[in-house]
Amino acid sequence: MPNRTVFFVSDGTGITAETFGNSILAQFSAKPRHVRRPFIDTPDKAYQVVREINDTAGREGKRPIVFITLIDTEVRGIIRSAHCLVLDMLGTFVEPLEAEFGIKSNHRVGRFDDISKSQEYTDRIEAINFSLAHDDGQSSKNLDIADVILVGVSRSGKTPTSLYLAMQHGIKAANYPLIPEDFDRGALPSALVPHKKKCFGLTIAPERLREIRHERRPNSKYASLENCRLEVSAAESMMGREGIAWLSSTHKSIEEIATTILRDIRPDRLIY
Amino acid sequence: MPNRTVFFVSDGTGITAETFGNSILAQFSAKPRHVRRPFIDTPDKAYQVVREINDTAGREGKRPIVFITLIDTEVRGIIRSAHCLVLDMLGTFVEPLEAEFGIKSNHRVGRFDDISKSQEYTDRIEAINFSLAHDDGQSSKNLDIADVILVGVSRSGKTPTSLYLAMQHGIKAANYPLIPEDFDRGALPSALVPHKKKCFGLTIAPERLREIRHERRPNSKYASLENCRLEVSAAESMMGREGIAWLSSTHKSIEEIATTILRDIRPDRLIY
Repeated sequence: MPNRTVFFVSDGTGITAETFGNSILAQFSAKPRHVRRPFIDTPDKAYQVVREINDTAGREGKRPIVFITLIDTEVRGIIRSAHCLVLDMLGTFVEPLEAEFGIKSNHRVGRFDDISKSQEYTDRIEAINFSLAHDDGQSSKNLDIADVILVGVSRSGKTPTSLYLAMQHGIKAANYPLIPEDFDRGALPSALVPHKKKCFGLTIAPERLREIRHERRPNSKYASLENCRLEVSAAESMMGREGIAWLSSTHKSIEEIATTILRDIRPDRLIY
Repeated sequence: MPNRTVFFVSDGTGITAETFGNSILAQFSAKPRHVRRPFIDTPDKAYQVVREINDTAGREGKRPIVFITLIDTEVRGIIRSAHCLVLDMLGTFVEPLEAEFGIKSNHRVGRFDDISKSQEYTDRIEAINFSLAHDDGQSSKNLDIADVILVGVSRSGKTPTSLYLAMQHGIKAANYPLIPEDFDRGALPSALVPHKKKCFGLTIAPERLREIRHERRPNSKYASLENCRLEVSAAESMMGREGIAWLSSTHKSIEEIATTILRDIRPDRLIY
């Protein structure tokens, strides 16, 4: 599939079109070229995209694949007239739902009159601020309002996972490192003790941890395989002893880690 | 549409199913209850979900809507046997693509053998670390390797946008505040001058800024409407003078802001 182009054409940001399109394209081994055309909401703009699609088809000798999220019937019709394979996510699924619900759709694509004023959106921004302020044990204040506290050795994946939970799910995710001093003392950091129930552990294969730490501080004791082994094993024992559930981040993406954590903590305010 | 439940059933994290499902549900005014069932990858787990769907149908007197991203034919068939309306995103779109490409699909849903080892994933994690280290002008080091530097007054939306760009698009997004001292001096912070070309501005309506700042520091001069007006107007003049493109975050979601910035900066390494 070389010389093949995929277009994402949307009357909004195109995030939905692209996210969905990518999950479908991930089914195929080849990597086509991506072209994003957001905010296509007038016939004029649509005709411009059609010219681009047709030029591409001529140049590549293969018709492009075009993922669309377009509400306006006229705009949609114009794009359909191009020399391409159109995959229309809304048209295919919204109509059966109208029949099922017995109501007409709003003819909107993931857009709200003013998303920035919705409670859900405000909660997400607040969660991001909370997670930033509570990154890497920076603050023990307000841990009582955290939805989850990720714990684990340095560089086990806590920070990106916390931010992802906040950004995608509006979860107030603090994270707190387990460090050699804690292992020597044989006890959880005292700030965590009252909140043990909402702690969730991340662990990681010592070999992978060594690689990650080595990039940060080459040839340090901190990055040595021996030290990584000791820290990981001490952290796993401690989490086991304290009854803290954990998972390994070694072969998992942030999305997979986050989904597993959500399934486990099932915060009351999410129906999960 | 009260007492109506929507299920998201996936053999992976379910992020794709949910993102797509939500963009479709946003077409309707009512808010059904959401239930997420990720990692459904065996017949046993599928039968459990079927029981849940049927129980819900009985209790609510209406068949649930079920968005699925399931590759395994057996698992898919089991879910289809439940009393519900199934909306199958992969089945509907992957098959025509197989015909178009003339190759069989990988039968995978946005998953890779080991995503954590792909270059794309490593770049994303690196971008998150970069964006965190360069949040709020914390560091002027390595600004030359930033893909974009967001500028604007305090609380104009720079931090969440930077993190989103890093997390979703692997963009190294620094952010740097424009503060009263800069306006008094009438010049950009000196660290930004060599990198003006990759600066992108965020602005915000003074009334909205006042609300946001008021939550942080109630009744401060910082949060007063008069001060917000002065800062916003000074920042907009400065960006105009320096030839820095900007947009207003007032009525936009992070996703919309990020998409607009990407369209504008078109980083070379993304085919955008």
